[in-house]
Amino acid sequence: MNRSIIRYILGQVLKLESAFLLLPCIVALIYRESQGIYYLITIAIGLVIGVLMTMKKPKNMVFYLKEGCVATALSWIVMSLLGCLPFWFSHEIPSFTDALFETISGFTTTGASVLNNVEALSHCNLFWRSFTHWIGGMGVLVFMLAIIPMSGGSNINLMRAESPGPSVGKLVPKIRYSARILYYIYIGMTLLEIVFLLAGRMPLFDSLCTALGTAGTGGFGIKADSMASYSVYLQWVVTIFMILFGVNFNAYYFLIFGEVKKAAAMEEVKAYFATIGLAVAGIVICIWNTTSGFFDALTKAAFQVASLMTSTGFATVDYNAWSSTAKTILVFLMTIGACAGSTGGGIKVSRFISVFKTVKKELDSYIHPKSVKKIKMDGKPIEHDVVRSINVYFITFILLFCVSLLLVSFEGHDLTTNFTAVLATINNIGPGLNMVGPAENFGFFTPFTKYVLMFDMLAGRLELFPLLILLHPALWKQAFKRPSSWKKRGGK
Amino acid sequence: MNRSIIRYILGQVLKLESAFLLLPCIVALIYRESQGIYYLITIAIGLVIGVLMTMKKPKNMVFYLKEGCVATALSWIVMSLLGCLPFWFSHEIPSFTDALFETISGFTTTGASVLNNVEALSHCNLFWRSFTHWIGGMGVLVFMLAIIPMSGGSNINLMRAESPGPSVGKLVPKIRYSARILYYIYIGMTLLEIVFLLAGRMPLFDSLCTALGTAGTGGFGIKADSMASYSVYLQWVVTIFMILFGVNFNAYYFLIFGEVKKAAAMEEVKAYFATIGLAVAGIVICIWNTTSGFFDALTKAAFQVASLMTSTGFATVDYNAWSSTAKTILVFLMTIGACAGSTGGGIKVSRFISVFKTVKKELDSYIHPKSVKKIKMDGKPIEHDVVRSINVYFITFILLFCVSLLLVSFEGHDLTTNFTAVLATINNIGPGLNMVGPAENFGFFTPFTKYVLMFDMLAGRLELFPLLILLHPALWKQAFKRPSSWKKRGGK
Repeated sequence: MNRSIIRYILGQVLKLESAFLLLPCIVALIYRESQGIYYLITIAIGLVIGVLMTMKKPKNMVFYLKEGCVATALSWIVMSLLGCLPFWFSHEIPSFTDALFETISGFTTTGASVLNNVEALSHCNLFWRSFTHWIGGMGVLVFMLAIIPMSGGSNINLMRAESPGPSVGKLVPKIRYSARILYYIYIGMTLLEIVFLLAGRMPLFDSLCTALGTAGTGGFGIKADSMASYSVYLQWVVTIFMILFGVNFNAYYFLIFGEVKKAAAMEEVKAYFATIGLAVAGIVICIWNTTSGFFDALTKAAFQVASLMTSTGFATVDYNAWSSTAKTILVFLMTIGACAGSTGGGIKVSRFISVFKTVKKELDSYIHPKSVKKIKMDGKPIEHDVVRSINVYFITFILLFCVSLLLVSFEGHDLTTNFTAVLATINNIGPGLNMVGPAENFGFFTPFTKYVLMFDMLAGRLELFPLLILLHPALWKQAFKRPSSWKKRGGK
Repeated sequence: MNRSIIRYILGQVLKLESAFLLLPCIVALIYRESQGIYYLITIAIGLVIGVLMTMKKPKNMVFYLKEGCVATALSWIVMSLLGCLPFWFSHEIPSFTDALFETISGFTTTGASVLNNVEALSHCNLFWRSFTHWIGGMGVLVFMLAIIPMSGGSNINLMRAESPGPSVGKLVPKIRYSARILYYIYIGMTLLEIVFLLAGRMPLFDSLCTALGTAGTGGFGIKADSMASYSVYLQWVVTIFMILFGVNFNAYYFLIFGEVKKAAAMEEVKAYFATIGLAVAGIVICIWNTTSGFFDALTKAAFQVASLMTSTGFATVDYNAWSSTAKTILVFLMTIGACAGSTGGGIKVSRFISVFKTVKKELDSYIHPKSVKKIKMDGKPIEHDVVRSINVYFITFILLFCVSLLLVSFEGHDLTTNFTAVLATINNIGPGLNMVGPAENFGFFTPFTKYVLMFDMLAGRLELFPLLILLHPALWKQAFKRPSSWKKRGGK
């Protein structure tokens, strides 16, 4: 295994994060908050370690899928360890475990909080919390690829390991330009949302944090009641932008280059909007009689559906009090998740499409045993290998889910709490039902459970395998072998 | 599609069921119960329809997987429709829906009951209820294959559609002998259990019903408290026999022919016993402090584990009151199920082994990208096709589960009740948790929900696809085409 390239990437990530940490510093300056000093300390730590790790450039810049996965998984862990320091140093989150939980929840765009009273936080900490969503949404390695020249075509493996969804959007042949285009779209849409929010008279700071949280489909709010106290106009702006950030970014790429037809023909995007439409309709029917009329029901249903389907996790209502059917629909949306190639979490719409088509094909094979058809998506056949890996993804998801559920059950809470706590973290949503409902928080769990859920958040954000192979004994055997022995075998 | 062979098979099934219905008639005679008359009426109905349907022997006795599936699915539906008549006629289950639910629950070896007071039933009805488990456990079509000569080697397709598990036990080259061997083992073990139960001073009638329920891994009790009032010895006898009936019958075949090594090497059987051992250990730890000591905890844990893992559904304790971890373990066992090729339900241990190995292989492929390994079971590689179909099975299971969950949620009960009601029916277990816990019953559901659960019971027993293809539009298009057009295309 090429250990030096991993070290080099980790160093770059730390340097990059230190640069990002300057923004909350500026916020502290503006609001004259003393907590700014902790950001300076953290930046210093990040820079020193980062510079030390990147001093020696690796001779061999080539890396393979394995290195890509390990580098990605370790980057996210290192990033979270550094990112949690300001919360911890400032004693606004006194326990290290809690600070780490909050930071991982931020970077993975989960939005599950341990805080009882979020409004007590200083502005710089509130801003950093929301900013971690934005960084994590598109991916820090994708950002790195966009600005740091890395030789070799093999860095597609980094992007592949970090990007959500089964097929990675290599929009243009050069990774670097793909990464840049993605970030241009991302920044543009974030700015657009800020403008719309300001137009609805939301204060600038609130607009910034809300837009960062929406863009990353994160869900950390800066108010105790999440989004409930904002005007209906603002709620609709957030609803629409949550939905937009859950769309496969390839669609925007097509739109920008005038290929409207291609964008409109994307099966995943169509299915995504159809699911949202159906879910909203279903929930409107369920909650109509508990609201002040059709428009109120529509506003509430649309906001909650958009929030949970895109795995954002904002809330305007305590849906824990909704009917059983409405809650079941929400749990389904939480499971499905957003489009691949968006900033959203979950299993992803395209995986479900593939899976539905697989089942349909199996049923067909009973009726026409001799027909051999490939599953198609957007008119093109999907390779058997991709279908297989999607099926394996599903199964791995379920196994990890079951193990986590068992570990969380040790605390003895009710099954719905355990089930939705795991679902909400593994799919990077945020709130669940019952004791982890939108009006509650994750602070009451024991540190053991918190670490289990942290693992789930990272596993969910990195699409399981990059994190799971860190647990594979064969990897560690390779990692501690002398590098020379690997060179002989071609670096693999 | 060869419609006449399907008609012929359905007729044979009805005739066979009429013969089986003679047994509860005899029970009614012995106990001098007037309800016997309803069995005679039912027998008459079954015989008349059966004879009419089998009068004309089909010219073409060849059938394919499609016909096998359709014949199996329709057989089970027809069988249940006839089998529920005595309950309905006798007014001991006054609603037709309830009578049908109880019968499907019996034949599919689920054991979920709608009855509030089972002890109020007449002996002949109690006996028939338990006897449906025994018939359904090994499969009525397998029985038919054992006694009625069917020409052509293609009747493996019937057995394949009805037998539990991914690989069908064609023990010897001739299907007919395979089917007979399976039934000999089945009858032998049932008799053995009766002997052991009688030795523990259980009354003959109780022993019969209990043994029939255990053998089919069904779970209908004849007492209101299921098995709680029987002695510890009797509980252990039932525990051990439940576990034995959950073992892959191929193991017994090997044992009978002296191939002990082959039986002991079966990975599925080893994993099955290991899972039981681990689950019992885990639950003993969870419940120790609520019981009168280690042996009491062990007795209770072993009984419940054996009952839920093999999908039997007997109970000696209201495990709904157990701790969250213990309940989570039970839900896992309910999901896993027994061995393939046993009478038990669930997803089956061998499918889980295959799935674990698939995930392991995927992780390996990240570390050694170029190695191409086949997944092995019992030392032999599993064909990619089998692995694929197991993965597809899993995914289909989950989709059906979700749809059912949504439909059941319309009633507005809590999520745990809905979740375990669907799980307990689709996996043919019987009781679930909360409102469908072991001390409760399924009677409170609306007819709509009951029909959803009936569908799930049948789908679960027939391993999903035979029942699901009945819903496939293409099948009906074929079925209503003129038969001649099919002959030209070679009967396919």
